[in-house]
Amino acid sequence: MGERMSRRGLFGLGAAGAAVVGAGVVGANALLDEPPVAHAASTSDPFPFYGEHQAGIVTPAQDRLHFVSFDVTTDKRADLVELLQEWTAAAARLTQGKEAGAFGAVGVPPEAPPDDTGEALGLPASGLTLTIGFGASLFDKRFGLEGKRPAALADLPKFPGEQLIPEISGGDICVQACAHDPQVAVHAIRNLARIGFGKVSVRWSQLGFGRTSSTSRAQATPRNLMGFKDGTNNLKLEDADLLQQQLWAAAQDGSAWMAGGSYVVTRKIRMTVETWDRTSLAEQEQIFGRNKGEGAPLGKKAEFDPLDFAAKGPDGQPYIKVDAHVRLAHPSANGNAHLLRRGYNFVDGSDGLGRLDAGLFFIAYQRDPRKQFVPVQLSLAKNDQLNEYIKHVSSGLFACPPGVRDAGDYWGRTLFE
Amino acid sequence: MGERMSRRGLFGLGAAGAAVVGAGVVGANALLDEPPVAHAASTSDPFPFYGEHQAGIVTPAQDRLHFVSFDVTTDKRADLVELLQEWTAAAARLTQGKEAGAFGAVGVPPEAPPDDTGEALGLPASGLTLTIGFGASLFDKRFGLEGKRPAALADLPKFPGEQLIPEISGGDICVQACAHDPQVAVHAIRNLARIGFGKVSVRWSQLGFGRTSSTSRAQATPRNLMGFKDGTNNLKLEDADLLQQQLWAAAQDGSAWMAGGSYVVTRKIRMTVETWDRTSLAEQEQIFGRNKGEGAPLGKKAEFDPLDFAAKGPDGQPYIKVDAHVRLAHPSANGNAHLLRRGYNFVDGSDGLGRLDAGLFFIAYQRDPRKQFVPVQLSLAKNDQLNEYIKHVSSGLFACPPGVRDAGDYWGRTLFE
Repeated sequence: MGERMSRRGLFGLGAAGAAVVGAGVVGANALLDEPPVAHAASTSDPFPFYGEHQAGIVTPAQDRLHFVSFDVTTDKRADLVELLQEWTAAAARLTQGKEAGAFGAVGVPPEAPPDDTGEALGLPASGLTLTIGFGASLFDKRFGLEGKRPAALADLPKFPGEQLIPEISGGDICVQACAHDPQVAVHAIRNLARIGFGKVSVRWSQLGFGRTSSTSRAQATPRNLMGFKDGTNNLKLEDADLLQQQLWAAAQDGSAWMAGGSYVVTRKIRMTVETWDRTSLAEQEQIFGRNKGEGAPLGKKAEFDPLDFAAKGPDGQPYIKVDAHVRLAHPSANGNAHLLRRGYNFVDGSDGLGRLDAGLFFIAYQRDPRKQFVPVQLSLAKNDQLNEYIKHVSSGLFACPPGVRDAGDYWGRTLFE
Repeated sequence: MGERMSRRGLFGLGAAGAAVVGAGVVGANALLDEPPVAHAASTSDPFPFYGEHQAGIVTPAQDRLHFVSFDVTTDKRADLVELLQEWTAAAARLTQGKEAGAFGAVGVPPEAPPDDTGEALGLPASGLTLTIGFGASLFDKRFGLEGKRPAALADLPKFPGEQLIPEISGGDICVQACAHDPQVAVHAIRNLARIGFGKVSVRWSQLGFGRTSSTSRAQATPRNLMGFKDGTNNLKLEDADLLQQQLWAAAQDGSAWMAGGSYVVTRKIRMTVETWDRTSLAEQEQIFGRNKGEGAPLGKKAEFDPLDFAAKGPDGQPYIKVDAHVRLAHPSANGNAHLLRRGYNFVDGSDGLGRLDAGLFFIAYQRDPRKQFVPVQLSLAKNDQLNEYIKHVSSGLFACPPGVRDAGDYWGRTLFE
């Protein structure tokens, strides 16, 4: 119980806790003798919008999500470019806690609709980040982009057991809004949709209420809706070498316009939590390969104790079973493939069968899904005992371009130039 | 802009802000020379579970909601009573930041499922309140309750324009979970569902991410998804006389078992925000009868300036139009009927037609819906210009019994004794 008490302030769900997290990031970097990374000092503060990479990828994962996928309804390249420029200008404002555009008496005559929808008036930036990605369907002759589709944006294979719903999968453009205040994240997506009226329409959108991964060592590991800590060994912003190797696309990967960008895979993973909740603690822990309370690898004591897949218990069997989730998903079982996960828990009401419609909206960034998400998921889809309790119902894959350098730049400029 | 800056810390969305809110509650009461009301000093702290009234009604509205409606699947009265007792014991623990039951090695053998699902381990109480209500369908011969149905629990009339979906309306029992952390609210509802396995099943559930009303004068007024401040003139916990007259059921109302309880009406109100967002600022403000920036009545300057329905502008027309929302909903137009609203904004993905599925999950507590919600809503449904932009898609009405007095008491005891 002592540890539980001491972790309370750190769990990243109140401003007091988050202030400690912010301080922790500074401290960690001082310790590592590296330049300080961008961080918010409290959950109210903004993250920088401009930079080499888009924010919202290695940014310490905020608590709340609104993710949207748009279909482009115009077939004019110039319209699309203009929209991306307008969106970039709005995003630069929104992420700094400003309205999307002029509101009310200042700049907007009363006979015109406001250039901001108003529901975030008075709210701080709340750590909002907006991250854009382009789906494979955008790279067609409508926009003259047939030749620009990156090889790494290859369609995902059909995975065993998945039951994808097309209406909530794919899309031409995605925007991930993460913030510490859901009203701020919703406001941002809603205003991008408003600005895009006549050029894009909302294909699907997903709210997430609790982050299920840390993306910084300064953050405590959160829990998914199976009650387990999730993302203990996630790729984190402090892993500078691994980020270069495994997260950021480079010019030599074949699509120079993606240099400094990354590829995001989304999977809506429905959990049958009611069945899971009637499973014994021992079975739950064997399925994951970690204990539930501390998140320690089975046979070890603490969350961050290294995984030892060879260690055997008194019965001569490995502590971590051959088909345990942590073993199957581990880089050592997947050609050293890492993922930077920043998924969110969701509950979308009920399923009409007496159960909560609950689960994990999985989000993972990587340099090349063909070498990272695909082999890991193929292995999990075939062998993971968790499959008895989960079902993949939506899927998305998007190429997230490099960051916007300054006010003269815009989302996707390198693609359209 | 000065006011906007000064409200930032108060907007109730971070622990720092909430600490100020907590202090504000104390301050307000000191000022009124009344005994201090129950309040949380920060967004992490618990509210008392035991008391004359259920918590979650006049409790200063927390930021997040998970509302659930259950169908009772057992037809045994004893099973139902036992479930209410088990739920009460769990609620007394959960609201104080404890697990629903024994977890893991302490008390639960590894071959049994844990008595808590685990996803809130390490999280503080987060101001969680759990509030139960009984729907009209519970008062039938299954449980020998035919004679106990309160007159005030009369079925709501069909309102003009409503398009109710039966699958997400009604239900035998509701539980409202409000907390500052959505993971804590979800965890509570999920564990009540788990405990109720075999006796109840989830009929529908609704998450809300942003409160749309204040229930205390110490709270800043939040905004709904139309971008307007909502609930400026809400019934508030400081209105002691009005609460007795208009919120709490009394023995002389006809159902002695409800004394100290209240009746809750829920309405899921879908907003076509895309259409709203293309409406001019002047029209939006005329529809509401307030300006959008400050929330001031039209013709006045500040949010809390009194409404003056007689005041006329230079054109000889009333500043607040005869069919403005604030005029139609005002107690003076409805036989002095007040409501204690504590609704939440929602976004449930998209609607398959290119739009966000967004709106307001309206929740209102009152002493007698026949005299309060029904006349107000009949007037609004007939005359409110807002109807062009909204649609009621679900409805619920529940009798919320009095509070649980102590550890020997349970939710609904007065009904079953």
